[in-house]
Amino acid sequence: MGPAARLKISLREAQYLMAESIRIKADTVRAFLAEMFRRFGVSERDAWTAADVLVRADLRGVESHGVNNLWQYTDFLRSGEVNPHPSIRVAEESPITAVVDGDFGMGLVTGVRAMELCIAKAKEHGVAVVSVRRSKHFGMASYYALMCLPHDMIGVSLTNNSTVGVVPTFGKQPMMSTNPISIVVPAGKEPPFELDMATSVVAMSKVGLALAKGDRIPFGWALDEDGRPTDDPQKAWDDRRFLPLGGTRELGGHKGYGLAVAVDILTGVLAGGMYGDRVQRRPPEDKRMRRSSSHFFAALRIDCFRPVDEFKADMDDMLRALKESEKAPGQERIYTAGEIEHETEQERQTNGIPYHPYFVEQLQKLAGEFGIPFSIR
Amino acid sequence: MGPAARLKISLREAQYLMAESIRIKADTVRAFLAEMFRRFGVSERDAWTAADVLVRADLRGVESHGVNNLWQYTDFLRSGEVNPHPSIRVAEESPITAVVDGDFGMGLVTGVRAMELCIAKAKEHGVAVVSVRRSKHFGMASYYALMCLPHDMIGVSLTNNSTVGVVPTFGKQPMMSTNPISIVVPAGKEPPFELDMATSVVAMSKVGLALAKGDRIPFGWALDEDGRPTDDPQKAWDDRRFLPLGGTRELGGHKGYGLAVAVDILTGVLAGGMYGDRVQRRPPEDKRMRRSSSHFFAALRIDCFRPVDEFKADMDDMLRALKESEKAPGQERIYTAGEIEHETEQERQTNGIPYHPYFVEQLQKLAGEFGIPFSIR
Repeated sequence: MGPAARLKISLREAQYLMAESIRIKADTVRAFLAEMFRRFGVSERDAWTAADVLVRADLRGVESHGVNNLWQYTDFLRSGEVNPHPSIRVAEESPITAVVDGDFGMGLVTGVRAMELCIAKAKEHGVAVVSVRRSKHFGMASYYALMCLPHDMIGVSLTNNSTVGVVPTFGKQPMMSTNPISIVVPAGKEPPFELDMATSVVAMSKVGLALAKGDRIPFGWALDEDGRPTDDPQKAWDDRRFLPLGGTRELGGHKGYGLAVAVDILTGVLAGGMYGDRVQRRPPEDKRMRRSSSHFFAALRIDCFRPVDEFKADMDDMLRALKESEKAPGQERIYTAGEIEHETEQERQTNGIPYHPYFVEQLQKLAGEFGIPFSIR
Repeated sequence: MGPAARLKISLREAQYLMAESIRIKADTVRAFLAEMFRRFGVSERDAWTAADVLVRADLRGVESHGVNNLWQYTDFLRSGEVNPHPSIRVAEESPITAVVDGDFGMGLVTGVRAMELCIAKAKEHGVAVVSVRRSKHFGMASYYALMCLPHDMIGVSLTNNSTVGVVPTFGKQPMMSTNPISIVVPAGKEPPFELDMATSVVAMSKVGLALAKGDRIPFGWALDEDGRPTDDPQKAWDDRRFLPLGGTRELGGHKGYGLAVAVDILTGVLAGGMYGDRVQRRPPEDKRMRRSSSHFFAALRIDCFRPVDEFKADMDDMLRALKESEKAPGQERIYTAGEIEHETEQERQTNGIPYHPYFVEQLQKLAGEFGIPFSIR
């Protein structure tokens, strides 16, 4: 990424901090994005799917994986790096497993199709695992795991990415992407358990924010080019040597490193896609493979193990106990995984998604360029 | 745990640091343990199984889960808290899932039986998930996942425990046990990938070691009784308020917290066993349930996804690349998960397991008490 792109991001984030946001209804943004994707040759159905994945990230307050990233998708559709009308096909299949070949379509679409297949198989047999190769960036990992909720299933969603930025313990060379893990579990009256975490200490977007605000970053997030811990967000941003969850060896960084590799295995290695720094060592002939992703989806029907209502009652009991447990000094609330995102989604569903005026201006410019109606009221 | 037990541990660990160890062949220890368990009414087959799980931990250098813990098992067998001849039964079953009721037998035995069932189901159908309730401490989590290796399967093993010692992010009350995750994956010429990690920053044994050595512990491992970070190993040991992997919120502790809860869900909640602090809030009538465990096992056949030899070649390529990547300043080697344990096992298989003379003396006393021959040569 060149200095201009870097400047653009930190400018945008600085702007965010200074101006009042504009609320836009999710439906409005979704319809605009869908029409946008259609103009790139994406089918009606796929365009709506992709739009929904991006908008849902914004609804949940996960802006780092939302409409903010629209340009990543449109630029790649434009350049041919992403295939607008892929032949997504099942390359290997058994009653409870499948390998899906994404044909370099948008990961946002391939991810949804693959998880739909996984859920259908789990519905019939109880458990299913679907792995995906030759896919692209699939956005917010939890979107796919969340799809299992209405079916009273536990959902798992993992992805890797051939853009490396995380170093192994005792190393200084970026060897893994941030390889996120999402596990979503239904509850009864409580919000579901919705874990969605990078296996690095922080997501890159947090470093961008520190950069924009002029803050130092805590030691333990990233290394400089010599492999020493740094508190300089610019160095962290430029060098991309993030530490795995846990940070240093002393604080358990080897565990985050292990988890990151486990995700690489279950996605890239299992699906026959890219993994680790392989693209850097041996660039594939097919350029689209150079910036590719593999995914892993699993769905597990709760009623194979115990009655769903009993399971949900225990979930409620456990989640409530966690929230009601004693607080550390200065803390007023204990959260369960995804609780903030869940509440944010409910609020934004009603009141609209807050966007920065500068960002809205960019969207309107894009709309004008393509002649797509985009009224923000 | 009373002050006496605490003292015993730190004394023992202090001793370890001061004396030359005695090497004993794994077979010798295994035969002794098996005979020991037999004397408590455990069947021949189960006694050998339990002995093997404990000895393998020592072979792999995971002493915290090895023969060191023998007294935990023998004391519980003596007091009736552990059932020497349980009716381990399948309570729920489908072709690819099962819920096993451990009938409060040793977790070491129930774990192996449950994973055997899981492997048999996966062999037939490709993927299987088996959950276990009413079990007891099952020792080293990776033992069970390692069972998948000869079958060219990926193995997953999780457990919880009703003894809580880990606090949620922003909390100070222990609400979870150390809830470990083990994921084991076969490779070709490289040692397998063998992840086995507590979802807390550190295992309690590390605090015991710091205590014995008179060291401070790093801030970020544990809280004191007021919920403030402490570097005092005595306070950490007494209060048992360990932080989840990641430590503070700033360094990603909410992710370790999320993983710990995910393990509690997939073990205790899914199996219909205990979870979180439920035993503390509502002590079950059956006393054996008060110190119980639930487990989760999964097995996944690699050849459902791609040819095993291709998968293993990619595993080798990835693991080698990690090990050969650039080292951080002052580091000479990068490890992959389980590599140290794998090498330790090979060395100790040949040369015997090093035990402290004081510990050997304890074993010999126990042998004498039961009239079991135990020659260490």
